[in-house]
Amino acid sequence: MKAHITIKDLAKELNISPSTISRALKDHPDISPETKRIVKELAQKLKYRPNLLAQGLRNSKTNTIGVIIPEFIHFFFSTIVSGIEDIAYAKGYNVILCQSAETYEREVTDTKALWNSRVDGMLVSISKETTQYDHFKELLNEGLPIVFFDRVANQLEASQVIVDDYLGAYNAVEHLISKGCKKIVHLAGPKNLEISKNRLNGYKDCLKKYTINFDKNLVVRCPEGTYEESKRFTNIILNTHNDIDGVFGCNDMAALGAILAVKEKGMKIPEEIKIIGFSDWQLSNLIEPRLTTVSQAGFEMGQAAATILIDEIEAEEGTVTHVKKIISTKLIERDTT
Amino acid sequence: MKAHITIKDLAKELNISPSTISRALKDHPDISPETKRIVKELAQKLKYRPNLLAQGLRNSKTNTIGVIIPEFIHFFFSTIVSGIEDIAYAKGYNVILCQSAETYEREVTDTKALWNSRVDGMLVSISKETTQYDHFKELLNEGLPIVFFDRVANQLEASQVIVDDYLGAYNAVEHLISKGCKKIVHLAGPKNLEISKNRLNGYKDCLKKYTINFDKNLVVRCPEGTYEESKRFTNIILNTHNDIDGVFGCNDMAALGAILAVKEKGMKIPEEIKIIGFSDWQLSNLIEPRLTTVSQAGFEMGQAAATILIDEIEAEEGTVTHVKKIISTKLIERDTT
Repeated sequence: MKAHITIKDLAKELNISPSTISRALKDHPDISPETKRIVKELAQKLKYRPNLLAQGLRNSKTNTIGVIIPEFIHFFFSTIVSGIEDIAYAKGYNVILCQSAETYEREVTDTKALWNSRVDGMLVSISKETTQYDHFKELLNEGLPIVFFDRVANQLEASQVIVDDYLGAYNAVEHLISKGCKKIVHLAGPKNLEISKNRLNGYKDCLKKYTINFDKNLVVRCPEGTYEESKRFTNIILNTHNDIDGVFGCNDMAALGAILAVKEKGMKIPEEIKIIGFSDWQLSNLIEPRLTTVSQAGFEMGQAAATILIDEIEAEEGTVTHVKKIISTKLIERDTT
Repeated sequence: MKAHITIKDLAKELNISPSTISRALKDHPDISPETKRIVKELAQKLKYRPNLLAQGLRNSKTNTIGVIIPEFIHFFFSTIVSGIEDIAYAKGYNVILCQSAETYEREVTDTKALWNSRVDGMLVSISKETTQYDHFKELLNEGLPIVFFDRVANQLEASQVIVDDYLGAYNAVEHLISKGCKKIVHLAGPKNLEISKNRLNGYKDCLKKYTINFDKNLVVRCPEGTYEESKRFTNIILNTHNDIDGVFGCNDMAALGAILAVKEKGMKIPEEIKIIGFSDWQLSNLIEPRLTTVSQAGFEMGQAAATILIDEIEAEEGTVTHVKKIISTKLIERDTT
């Protein structure tokens, strides 16, 4: 199939900005007759066709944004949704949401449901299971603006808002080392997620920096993400290694399971073993001992994602440049370290 | 305005079932020509007009259910959503959600957004602020099936799924009394919600049953619903009354605030003061001491609401009978009593 000629192609050919091309094609009064002529001639020559679907959407805007998140129950995602709504409602957009329940199949269905609801754009954090992205590619090709946040797919040409997971993890491990930890377990997230990879890399690189040998047996995958799971695995690793003095959880739920396992074993936190999480969920401040963690600024992430999406929705066709926004993390020291 | 003639009116007049009337009007082969003639004559005489909107919806079904909940962040609502999705997806429906953020204004906007998304029906738990219901009445009059759950409006002709809040509250207070409590504070919910009224009534009636005088100073409203709020108010009441020996929170968040205030004051739970919540949120089992509470079976509630809604969506026009389903509660005893 021959590639579809876009406004960007015309702009490149003529060395004129895409927004000028777009306005020339629409006979905008600000554009000179001469420019209009040149642009239209080239458009005809190259068989440029405006993206009808995208134009159609723009002509019958619903002022609704669709959001797909893995699970509402995660405090982090709820906070992101609040950030999204904060910007969206202020700018006159409604927000409707679907949860993928961490399954690929539901994510595909949700994408269709939101498309059928004629949303103007989508904000998506992909499910743990998702490893192929045709359901998003299709809509992006149709001209629907989609911005990915937190859990993103680098294969897709779309804007992203992510947390600096690598640096956040690095700082978390450095914090444990600064408190004297020498044998640090990492309760890691699902393999296919970028965030898991980045956090694992932050853990590895920090150990290296402090000349602590990386031991792959100390990386324990917790794909389910429940505290029961990480409690079980922490229990096993404590029974097979008697010199563990630190645990870095890929999220607060994992860290919580570690706390429960360590307490059950009668070991003292933080004296004998120090624990740090990632996310700063509400419960981290309510459990005992209160969890040291890496705060992700979910509200700010939601605001950024919504702002970028609305800019893309309201941009002239062909003038969108995708952005990658990185939100920095903050270490919050409490009682577990 | 003259009332719109419905299939029910025709059925009553002719003493025939509404589903027969509906099928007669549609020339269904199972209905005798004689019956069809009688029904059609009466329909003409009374100027019966089929509800076009409802028919239109049925003709272009989106197989999507819209859900409005006050806040995703509440574990109880997340659980309800899981129950809704469990039934909906199994029956071939998608679920899209909006949160009202506990405001009337957002609830109205959400209602419109879901309507514009052409949902086949809605499931709604009303916001704390809502005291008038025209936004729902309008859609019900248009023939859109709506089922209310947990936070319902008795003024509306629609199906409801509710928890037995009265009995749940009664049992909670009885549990405190059976453990020796004599001066029990009730951290009450917002005044306008039925659930708050029912829980307060359960509290009052149980005190009466055990001949404990009702003291209105022991009922403390917590309209915000945050633990910071209930912590503040518990603190005040502990400082003004030195003989409080029990706290019944309208929900677990309120009870959690009470736990924090009591611990800060250095009083022992459950020895000096006993605390019970309502909802059985996830964190109730994770905090220390673990909270005794009343479990609401949110998943079951979501399943029931979705089942009723889909039945109404798929029913023949005019054959819907609204139902009121009451889900019973269960007391879960943990460390705070």
